[in-house]
Amino acid sequence: MPKAKNVKESLTIMTEMVMPNDTNTLGNLMGGNLMRMMDVAAAIAAQKHSNRIVVTASVDNVSFVNPIPLGNVVTLEAKITRAFNTSMEVVVDVFSENIPAGQKSKTNQAFLTFVAVDQSGRPIEIAEAIPETELELELFEGALRRRQLRLVLAGRMKPEEASELKAIFKI
Amino acid sequence: MPKAKNVKESLTIMTEMVMPNDTNTLGNLMGGNLMRMMDVAAAIAAQKHSNRIVVTASVDNVSFVNPIPLGNVVTLEAKITRAFNTSMEVVVDVFSENIPAGQKSKTNQAFLTFVAVDQSGRPIEIAEAIPETELELELFEGALRRRQLRLVLAGRMKPEEASELKAIFKI
Amino acid sequence: MPKAKNVKESLTIMTEMVMPNDTNTLGNLMGGNLMRMMDVAAAIAAQKHSNRIVVTASVDNVSFVNPIPLGNVVTLEAKITRAFNTSMEVVVDVFSENIPAGQKSKTNQAFLTFVAVDQSGRPIEIAEAIPETELELELFEGALRRRQLRLVLAGRMKPEEASELKAIFKI
Amino acid sequence: MPKAKNVKESLTIMTEMVMPNDTNTLGNLMGGNLMRMMDVAAAIAAQKHSNRIVVTASVDNVSFVNPIPLGNVVTLEAKITRAFNTSMEVVVDVFSENIPAGQKSKTNQAFLTFVAVDQSGRPIEIAEAIPETELELELFEGALRRRQLRLVLAGRMKPEEASELKAIFKI
Amino acid sequence: MPKAKNVKESLTIMTEMVMPNDTNTLGNLMGGNLMRMMDVAAAIAAQKHSNRIVVTASVDNVSFVNPIPLGNVVTLEAKITRAFNTSMEVVVDVFSENIPAGQKSKTNQAFLTFVAVDQSGRPIEIAEAIPETELELELFEGALRRRQLRLVLAGRMKPEEASELKAIFKI
Amino acid sequence: MPKAKNVKESLTIMTEMVMPNDTNTLGNLMGGNLMRMMDVAAAIAAQKHSNRIVVTASVDNVSFVNPIPLGNVVTLEAKITRAFNTSMEVVVDVFSENIPAGQKSKTNQAFLTFVAVDQSGRPIEIAEAIPETELELELFEGALRRRQLRLVLAGRMKPEEASELKAIFKI
Repeated sequence: MPKAKNVKESLTIMTEMVMPNDTNTLGNLMGGNLMRMMDVAAAIAAQKHSNRIVVTASVDNVSFVNPIPLGNVVTLEAKITRAFNTSMEVVVDVFSENIPAGQKSKTNQAFLTFVAVDQSGRPIEIAEAIPETELELELFEGALRRRQLRLVLAGRMKPEEASELKAIFKI
Repeated sequence: MPKAKNVKESLTIMTEMVMPNDTNTLGNLMGGNLMRMMDVAAAIAAQKHSNRIVVTASVDNVSFVNPIPLGNVVTLEAKITRAFNTSMEVVVDVFSENIPAGQKSKTNQAFLTFVAVDQSGRPIEIAEAIPETELELELFEGALRRRQLRLVLAGRMKPEEASELKAIFKI
Repeated sequence: MPKAKNVKESLTIMTEMVMPNDTNTLGNLMGGNLMRMMDVAAAIAAQKHSNRIVVTASVDNVSFVNPIPLGNVVTLEAKITRAFNTSMEVVVDVFSENIPAGQKSKTNQAFLTFVAVDQSGRPIEIAEAIPETELELELFEGALRRRQLRLVLAGRMKPEEASELKAIFKI
Repeated sequence: MPKAKNVKESLTIMTEMVMPNDTNTLGNLMGGNLMRMMDVAAAIAAQKHSNRIVVTASVDNVSFVNPIPLGNVVTLEAKITRAFNTSMEVVVDVFSENIPAGQKSKTNQAFLTFVAVDQSGRPIEIAEAIPETELELELFEGALRRRQLRLVLAGRMKPEEASELKAIFKI
Repeated sequence: MPKAKNVKESLTIMTEMVMPNDTNTLGNLMGGNLMRMMDVAAAIAAQKHSNRIVVTASVDNVSFVNPIPLGNVVTLEAKITRAFNTSMEVVVDVFSENIPAGQKSKTNQAFLTFVAVDQSGRPIEIAEAIPETELELELFEGALRRRQLRLVLAGRMKPEEASELKAIFKI
Repeated sequence: MPKAKNVKESLTIMTEMVMPNDTNTLGNLMGGNLMRMMDVAAAIAAQKHSNRIVVTASVDNVSFVNPIPLGNVVTLEAKITRAFNTSMEVVVDVFSENIPAGQKSKTNQAFLTFVAVDQSGRPIEIAEAIPETELELELFEGALRRRQLRLVLAGRMKPEEASELKAIFKI
């Protein structure tokens, strides 16, 4: 197994300007275009951790609360939260900024999982990810819970076996 | 409130060919690009039901199990499952087809929610959606459960109040 | 020769939203962008009939009467009309819809021809196409006439030999 | 009516390199993408003649005989052939060039018509186009014939009234 | 005049993956596409410093020594070097990374200048930029010299008046 | 060494319409997008001269004085100025035209250098370029001076050895 790496080594910052073709009829960034940006930023973070080609395995629930208008600057910060055997979870935080107006806010957070693969697409073992800060530790611990939810939702784990989910549902 | 409409009136079929720029290093459709297609197909279905401008409110967990290679034809079928007050849930089924090889398979299913808005972006009441087939009815009934999960995940509902979620977690 | 197939097996529905970059100075879909969509939709229909890689051989006269504004939904329905030896004709009907305004109209009809080829680009024999409905039969019969017109326009058939064209020109 | 202009004043040359995303599964320029380029080149030529905003009214039959591979340089030469009252016909000649291999050939010719419009999209009178060379004169004279064919194909002229078409069909 | 800001407040990091359509015939990122990325990254840095809409005024000489192949990750780091009255200079450092191969190198450095403008495009006064690190100070000091070179090259300053250029040409 | 060619054989004319996605917040063509167009036009001119695959080696200082608004037509004229051993300099003149308003102006001039390479990317000898007109001769002569400036700026020539630069700096 490759040598363990610190979570922060995977940090990937992506900055984009909202262009006309990214927007919907109201002049705001379309949800689907933001998801495409999230996928690219998170894939690069997963590459940085695993030093492998990676393919997207899943995207967790994403909410779109605040519209991001044309001309705003979108910053995505992606970082691995936890590595499993051949897969890893990445968290992406999205910030929207109207720079001339001096307004900046966090608009979204998403969790994506990636599988590391070799050139023929076969899964391949990856290094452990070591959390250092308190926030990294919290995300590391929550990763198990989110993983169980994914497995339950995909019908690959029975809800009664999802021990970690009890933390959410206080069962 | 607008007059109720049948679910099937919102059916939207989108067919796309996987182009070089949609692919990753392995020559397969990138997850983020598929999510962008899902968002557009589902938004059109939501428009068809509500006859309104719509904005994406959320995308539920999406899994990517089977890669979709360059040159394949992707078909997305989107249809409303249930309308709430000003929002609605849309299901998108994704099929991938290598036509010369005669191979077709269902690769993904996703649930997205949209809010109907007026020209200034304010939410606006929409018509009820009436399920007719058995499958439509099943999706209609599951919509409440998925909605509670979204609210719990977004921290806007306490897990112990999510009565419908018990159906999933057999609590 | 491959086994004959019904015309309806090739039906391809493509739905697109008119995005800012697709539009001209007046905010309407550019003719050239609509032609690109037609080509993709028709190519997929031709693939579905022939189960082969296909290349565009010709596009018949296309008229653009009604502008399709930004934000409208464009639906293209493509279906084979008739198969010849290694080529086939596809008809594409284009509908434009301003969904919030409840307006839908047919804006264009086009006929494209495709040649089925193998991996090295050589033409290859395809199945017959069997029309079933009255409309499919009418399109099937008209295909010969349109083919003669194409050959005459391309200087590959003498007008006096274009017996089917007489049906148009009532000679 | 605006002052007549020479045909050559509308000459528009557009040079493009075939990029990966323009190509089909065989690595050749897709027909639909070439049609989009033709539309832009011809629209600019029509603007140059009329000094107006123009909208595409029709595209005549286009044949695709020789594939144009990835990396080739495509040159489009567009020039008005004849002006009518508020519309004009433009001819586009397409050349494909593999420069390192020293190969250049003419691959397509297309005729498009445009209508000159004011800011609200209403047709507006344009200048006459004066052909000077023998080739320009020939295209000028053929324009009437092609126009009648368009009108007949669009069902807006009875074939028996299409006097100019007799030149083609030798009736 | 707005309050002076530290140079580091303008730092903008942009991460991109080289996609098929960004590449030339040899499968490497085209120079022009890298310049487009540089322009966007630098414009955001200039916005961050000035809190204004900015327009590109010039790009200094850029060299392309090492090719950046398809699939590589490109990181651009942009930061203001010095503010003048209504314009500012931004430096962009470009790094290319083949993550699976564990290779990372600096491939380019470019200096761009931007003018801060109001909504009608008129230049508007901006804050001073305060360098803090040794490197920032060095870039701050070199900015005058590069500015004189730009003015001389644009024919807007006589070479003999370009006192700072002497530092380069050791005259 | 290949046979010398006249400068004019490399002339490449590229015409583009400014589309919504090419523009910044003020509705004008972004500098970076113009640079991408310049790179493609100049690369084609370099290909025409050398009959080789070419890669961008450098772009000299480019100024952006006059904004080019949405809907304008941009014409780029690229031509080789001088060939060196395996590299060549190309000049690109950019014109912007608001055709309905009858306004045309030269907005930019840029010098780019390209290296001719074989299929594995190794530099390869090219033909000499022969200037014919007075302007071509002037550009041919200035090429040496600009080359020395590039070498000095890249730190690959000592300023005191840049004999030709004296012509600029009147030293």
